[in-house]
Amino acid sequence: MSLLEDLNWRHAAKAYDPNIKVSPEDLNKILEAARLAPTSSGLQPFRVIVVENQDLKEKMVAGALNPEVMRDCSHVLVFAAWDRYSAEKIDQVYDHHTTVRDLPQGRFSSYTDQLKNIYGAQTPDEHFAHTARQTYIALGLAMAQAAELKIDSTPAEGFSNEVVDGILALKELGLKSVTLLYLGYRDEKTDWLATMKKVRIPMEEFIVMK
Amino acid sequence: MSLLEDLNWRHAAKAYDPNIKVSPEDLNKILEAARLAPTSSGLQPFRVIVVENQDLKEKMVAGALNPEVMRDCSHVLVFAAWDRYSAEKIDQVYDHHTTVRDLPQGRFSSYTDQLKNIYGAQTPDEHFAHTARQTYIALGLAMAQAAELKIDSTPAEGFSNEVVDGILALKELGLKSVTLLYLGYRDEKTDWLATMKKVRIPMEEFIVMK
Repeated sequence: MSLLEDLNWRHAAKAYDPNIKVSPEDLNKILEAARLAPTSSGLQPFRVIVVENQDLKEKMVAGALNPEVMRDCSHVLVFAAWDRYSAEKIDQVYDHHTTVRDLPQGRFSSYTDQLKNIYGAQTPDEHFAHTARQTYIALGLAMAQAAELKIDSTPAEGFSNEVVDGILALKELGLKSVTLLYLGYRDEKTDWLATMKKVRIPMEEFIVMK
Repeated sequence: MSLLEDLNWRHAAKAYDPNIKVSPEDLNKILEAARLAPTSSGLQPFRVIVVENQDLKEKMVAGALNPEVMRDCSHVLVFAAWDRYSAEKIDQVYDHHTTVRDLPQGRFSSYTDQLKNIYGAQTPDEHFAHTARQTYIALGLAMAQAAELKIDSTPAEGFSNEVVDGILALKELGLKSVTLLYLGYRDEKTDWLATMKKVRIPMEEFIVMK
């Protein structure tokens, strides 16, 4: 199957069968697609929290627009972005780069100095606006990987960030929740969107040729 | 090839061969992946401007971090988000949905009323913060599609939004540039990143199991 076939196959599932779980092997492939997502300056300024525990899910539904979807899905992935950039975090990432590439430590220091200057002049709110954007790249690739495996997924912004951040103690990790991705297998009888035609605006409206 | 193989194959190309163009068929597949990207409430609040014209590219390089990459690539895709939501735009999208699905006009009015209330209470800056995020899903899927076709790509936030918006007259379209995606074929001799090992943080650091 091609990516385009997978993207045409998928939809945002509106109901899950609570009795079918995503296998550890498949879950790992979905997480790997998110991990391989390109990000600004390669900083990967977010983490993915994997929630399978039903008690935790029950607590996280408070304030969610589709509580039954969260309850019945197999796993909830929480895409949570760094609450701020710091010189220390930037160095950690690039020290890892030089180690993996067997290059001298500090090989990228002129570049990381630039990054530190740019982010050093910004507020934490500006940082988070930027780190949050990066999570959407990984969110999209995780959905594409799920579709390749014929696993259903539902991206969700409609939840209480306060509730989720609190339950998962994200502040202590320097993270703030951005989006959720529900994973599992649709309930054919109740997923009303499954039988509806996919709708996108026509290509001639979507693009502007210059 | 699988998505994971494609993601491992790709990197952000640092130099392009100016003599090799992406074919119209391949370009269309990349745009189709962006068009199929899921977005919040299905509103697709962005457009993709396709720039192949060399004179336009030369004008857009002012303020770009990697001017030679923009110059030498085959095509520049400009991901540009709605500068604001409006009741009219929401109705346009959902009128299209009901038409394509052969449903009565207004079938989703309770939902679109909710959307209008939510966005009606927000500022244009809040709107753009949200529409801009959605573009990253499409950016990621466009890169994945390019990789499937063994076409190189380079995502870029390092450019002058003011210059690009002005040259492409985006304000008149109710759009603001968010990211660029350079497409083309790497120059093997000068693309220094092509031979370097891909680096990502280890899976055990990237995920938090709950």
